[in-house]
Amino acid sequence: MNRTLVISIDAMGGDHGPSVTVPALALAAKAMPASTRFLVHGDAAALDPEFARHPALKAQVEVRHTDKVIASDEKPAVALRRGKGSSMWNAVEAVKAGEAVAAVSSGNTGGLMAISKLILRMSVDVDRPCLVASWPGAKGLTTVLDVGANIDCDAERLVEFAIMGEAFHRAFHGVAKPTVGLVNVGSEDVKGHEEVRLAHAILRSGKFDLDYRGFIEGDDLSKNTVDVAVTDGFTGNIMLKAAEGTGRYVEAELRAALTSSLITTAGALLARSGLRKFGQKLNPPRAAPLLGLNGVVVKSHGGAKAQDFADAILMAASLSQSDFATEVEKNMTRLTAAVAESSAPAADGAATVD
Amino acid sequence: MNRTLVISIDAMGGDHGPSVTVPALALAAKAMPASTRFLVHGDAAALDPEFARHPALKAQVEVRHTDKVIASDEKPAVALRRGKGSSMWNAVEAVKAGEAVAAVSSGNTGGLMAISKLILRMSVDVDRPCLVASWPGAKGLTTVLDVGANIDCDAERLVEFAIMGEAFHRAFHGVAKPTVGLVNVGSEDVKGHEEVRLAHAILRSGKFDLDYRGFIEGDDLSKNTVDVAVTDGFTGNIMLKAAEGTGRYVEAELRAALTSSLITTAGALLARSGLRKFGQKLNPPRAAPLLGLNGVVVKSHGGAKAQDFADAILMAASLSQSDFATEVEKNMTRLTAAVAESSAPAADGAATVD
Repeated sequence: MNRTLVISIDAMGGDHGPSVTVPALALAAKAMPASTRFLVHGDAAALDPEFARHPALKAQVEVRHTDKVIASDEKPAVALRRGKGSSMWNAVEAVKAGEAVAAVSSGNTGGLMAISKLILRMSVDVDRPCLVASWPGAKGLTTVLDVGANIDCDAERLVEFAIMGEAFHRAFHGVAKPTVGLVNVGSEDVKGHEEVRLAHAILRSGKFDLDYRGFIEGDDLSKNTVDVAVTDGFTGNIMLKAAEGTGRYVEAELRAALTSSLITTAGALLARSGLRKFGQKLNPPRAAPLLGLNGVVVKSHGGAKAQDFADAILMAASLSQSDFATEVEKNMTRLTAAVAESSAPAADGAATVD
Repeated sequence: MNRTLVISIDAMGGDHGPSVTVPALALAAKAMPASTRFLVHGDAAALDPEFARHPALKAQVEVRHTDKVIASDEKPAVALRRGKGSSMWNAVEAVKAGEAVAAVSSGNTGGLMAISKLILRMSVDVDRPCLVASWPGAKGLTTVLDVGANIDCDAERLVEFAIMGEAFHRAFHGVAKPTVGLVNVGSEDVKGHEEVRLAHAILRSGKFDLDYRGFIEGDDLSKNTVDVAVTDGFTGNIMLKAAEGTGRYVEAELRAALTSSLITTAGALLARSGLRKFGQKLNPPRAAPLLGLNGVVVKSHGGAKAQDFADAILMAASLSQSDFATEVEKNMTRLTAAVAESSAPAADGAATVD
């Protein structure tokens, strides 16, 4: 990489604003080339005192002042109507203008999706930027998408998710040939509704540069059976929240069980280093790319701490420096050709025959 | 109850057959009136030695010999074609013939659903008998349905699940007025796909004897936000398996973390009574009714132990002695009326207006 890497930052998003985003920049900068630059969008009056504590950053940062902020509970439609000139809006617009290669925000998800879609436009045919989750399991992290943006998905949308998820997993995790699975209620070809069966037939056709492994089930996620798990936004959102809820419940029960008597409490105290390790392993990364846009946008969690937001910046950097965009484009062209080839009746036939 | 309660038992199903089902009968009999009778279907040569160990049961049991058994990996279509005369078939047929008020089997789920549907027929308009799960949470168990039988569900099917799930929860858990929620990707009326929004509008109309609380999300299950959570069989199966997988993963990680060093192992040993309690609380009941049939059929887990299978027998007894059937029928009549009242365009309108 010879060219200077410029990342655009919405410094006002999330629960903590500059008190988290500025220390995060300092953390991220240490892990990136010294030539990296940050365009930081937000309220200069709030930002300057934070930057004063990180003088080493000065040469890498350009603050673009705005006092307009999108509230964390703003509806997407309102964010669109009134968001122009806000720190989030300006962060994304810098990518559109070619001033930065990627934008990072921990502002509200719906607003960020809507603004990113309006400014950058979609590069694929999905309705809204696709939400990605990293699902922790025994062997590492499975990339899961869509986890909530696109509620109604036909077979082509599911194939698009597979293409984007695979390219993202390679770009971010450095796996040369990620494996891909389609979430269903069983592993046989006849299982599931028409959309998943048709997507299965298209993915199995071998027309894409994908290591497609077929159907997987809900319990395959924690087993990391595949690197990339594809599902519609309705199912993905519900299964993710159901599993998160179960994880929290199990942790709470565990705490209660371990402090139910003096003896067990003493045991828990002795075991606490083990338990701490356990807690860390269960907490997945809190950064997620919005996939399907003409440009890189990474969403950090609203409650992100400095290290979380720094991780989101690093994710944005690796995505923008990877072949993600060209790989997706190549496979999308193949998808268009595959769909054109198989006229509507043939496509229906594929679903039934398989 | 003056009349004798007769339960029909498939004694050959599950991984262990009579060595589990007979001791289970002994356990169940202790918790039931002495007048209870069991019609036990299976291989007399395998059953007799088991019953010899439980002489107290003798007066309550009638063995109906058959040496035909449906294998645990039999496809439903094959079970239907070749199942006639098997222990599972005969157990269900005794309900149809009026010889027993309920049937219990730990045989294969697909086979039991197919045979039950063929013999007993559906009492409601769903495609297949509805599968129910009991979801453990902080405050108890949430009844979740459908968890895998009916993949494509329109709004009316979802309302039928609500009606049946609510009646089941009252009959089995003794809750006078169970609360009901519809699983979705958000709590606002505009969220989700058309089927859930229309089901929401029908349920909110107040035409049923239901305490309907609106949309819930995936993480509401472990919180027991409602007593009964309604979803289609595709989403339900995937969210259940995803949560089960997460639960197993968390337990495995916990065990690994607690035995990672001598100190933590010592701590885990001290804490073991707390940990045991924790494990028990996470294991939900392994019995599930097949809802929507003209008759009570309860499925026990294939790997059921004697207490699990005894619990399934008790569930069958409480369902058959409850007002489940009449309550479902009453609300189903109201549903038919509500759907007839709102002609197709009005129903569409409801989804949009709401």
